[in-house]
Amino acid sequence: NDITHEEALKAVLAAKVDAEKQGVLVNIAVVDAGANLKAFIRMDESYLGSIDVAIKKAKTARYFNIDTGELGELTQPGGIIYNIEHSNGGLISFPGGVPIKNKNGIIIGAIGVSGGTIDEDRAIAIKGAKSIID
Amino acid sequence: NDITHEEALKAVLAAKVDAEKQGVLVNIAVVDAGANLKAFIRMDESYLGSIDVAIKKAKTARYFNIDTGELGELTQPGGIIYNIEHSNGGLISFPGGVPIKNKNGIIIGAIGVSGGTIDEDRAIAIKGAKSIID
Amino acid sequence: NDITHEEALKAVLAAKVDAEKQGVLVNIAVVDAGANLKAFIRMDESYLGSIDVAIKKAKTARYFNIDTGELGELTQPGGIIYNIEHSNGGLISFPGGVPIKNKNGIIIGAIGVSGGTIDEDRAIAIKGAKSIID
Amino acid sequence: NDITHEEALKAVLAAKVDAEKQGVLVNIAVVDAGANLKAFIRMDESYLGSIDVAIKKAKTARYFNIDTGELGELTQPGGIIYNIEHSNGGLISFPGGVPIKNKNGIIIGAIGVSGGTIDEDRAIAIKGAKSIID
Repeated sequence: NDITHEEALKAVLAAKVDAEKQGVLVNIAVVDAGANLKAFIRMDESYLGSIDVAIKKAKTARYFNIDTGELGELTQPGGIIYNIEHSNGGLISFPGGVPIKNKNGIIIGAIGVSGGTIDEDRAIAIKGAKSIID
Repeated sequence: NDITHEEALKAVLAAKVDAEKQGVLVNIAVVDAGANLKAFIRMDESYLGSIDVAIKKAKTARYFNIDTGELGELTQPGGIIYNIEHSNGGLISFPGGVPIKNKNGIIIGAIGVSGGTIDEDRAIAIKGAKSIID
Repeated sequence: NDITHEEALKAVLAAKVDAEKQGVLVNIAVVDAGANLKAFIRMDESYLGSIDVAIKKAKTARYFNIDTGELGELTQPGGIIYNIEHSNGGLISFPGGVPIKNKNGIIIGAIGVSGGTIDEDRAIAIKGAKSIID
Repeated sequence: NDITHEEALKAVLAAKVDAEKQGVLVNIAVVDAGANLKAFIRMDESYLGSIDVAIKKAKTARYFNIDTGELGELTQPGGIIYNIEHSNGGLISFPGGVPIKNKNGIIIGAIGVSGGTIDEDRAIAIKGAKSIID
């Protein structure tokens, strides 16, 4: 139950098409079931700082099998896992990272998008994740 | 006054038995009096991101001889040691890490548990810590 | 004079096609003129350790505008830049990383390949680099 | 095809029994198919510096599916992959890390041992790796 490189490429390209349609410049990373980088693309003129953010969003989503935005609701001051971002070499806990599931609902990897607003990033990530079961 | 590897193994296995009883998938780490990793086990299917969190909980508990949940009350915005998580390569300051004491109440190490809810993690860690004086 | 993401993707895919033709399982990374990750793909079943090696080969090739294999001839014991691998968060100084040039011979990025023998990696990297001017 | 925590624990304990029989003080780490830490134990009085060496030996063995001692023959000055140790956050390329295979010969993880001589470390690692198919 691991994403293939063809699926990872499909997800990255679907996310890229969606980003272009919206006129948003992003970095897109896909990790496999082991949270290892599987595919990546950085759109021209996107933020330099978004390379690492996109990769960390994808890894975070797979480390804890969660939408990174949902994780962030728990890591705020007073939250139950406040400051968990200090683990695993740095987590990203705002929207833009989502698990990738296969047709049976099994998590096989994750995708992270960074460069737009958090709503844009999340929407693009979801498009990418869903592309592999269309 | 340092935990032995037999005691560390006993604590890890006691914690594991308790986790299995509760149906919680966790990573369990024990560090010695020097905050060095002494024993570790990662249950199948537990979160990938919990390996590092469990180890950091154990280290944090021994670095400051404190229940990590109690530490977290002091690290919030406005707290007296706000953002101390930036030190020591990353601390974890929510529940799941507790010091391990011998029969005389001397701290000889610490245990960290990650993978369940923070209440489950703390309860499992306490079970592990107490096992060596039973 | 910077590689575009379309060119980076073309180079990665050309390298992948060549690797598949040879039956070699590799990781392929392309960095831009700023040595920032631009595109990446990890073939199924390739070595886990090759993700980082491929990225470091690409960065090394651009950091010093050199074929990584040629750099390695200078980093041996007694060599003029012995152990330069300790800089920049870790360099890779054996074959598999090459600069990418545009039609005018200007370096616009670099490509790194890891997973096969060093000769295979270098040959695949060269195929990828040349693809963008064909 | 991933090692279970019961198998990982069995390998660690088999290695420990062998080390005790030989009177060698070692650290023993087992990683899973994804090169993630699965089980670990540190014998009393073993070298502090061997914790990280044991973990890195296990990871290195899985990163490249190789006996770390065999890898080291290729990383010497003049070797084909000289200084690859600078990748992946630090590799260890002398004996003591070996892949763990299941009964069908599939690699399902790796074990790393550090603390004795390199011959002792390798022999203990092999004992640990083989224990899961006995």
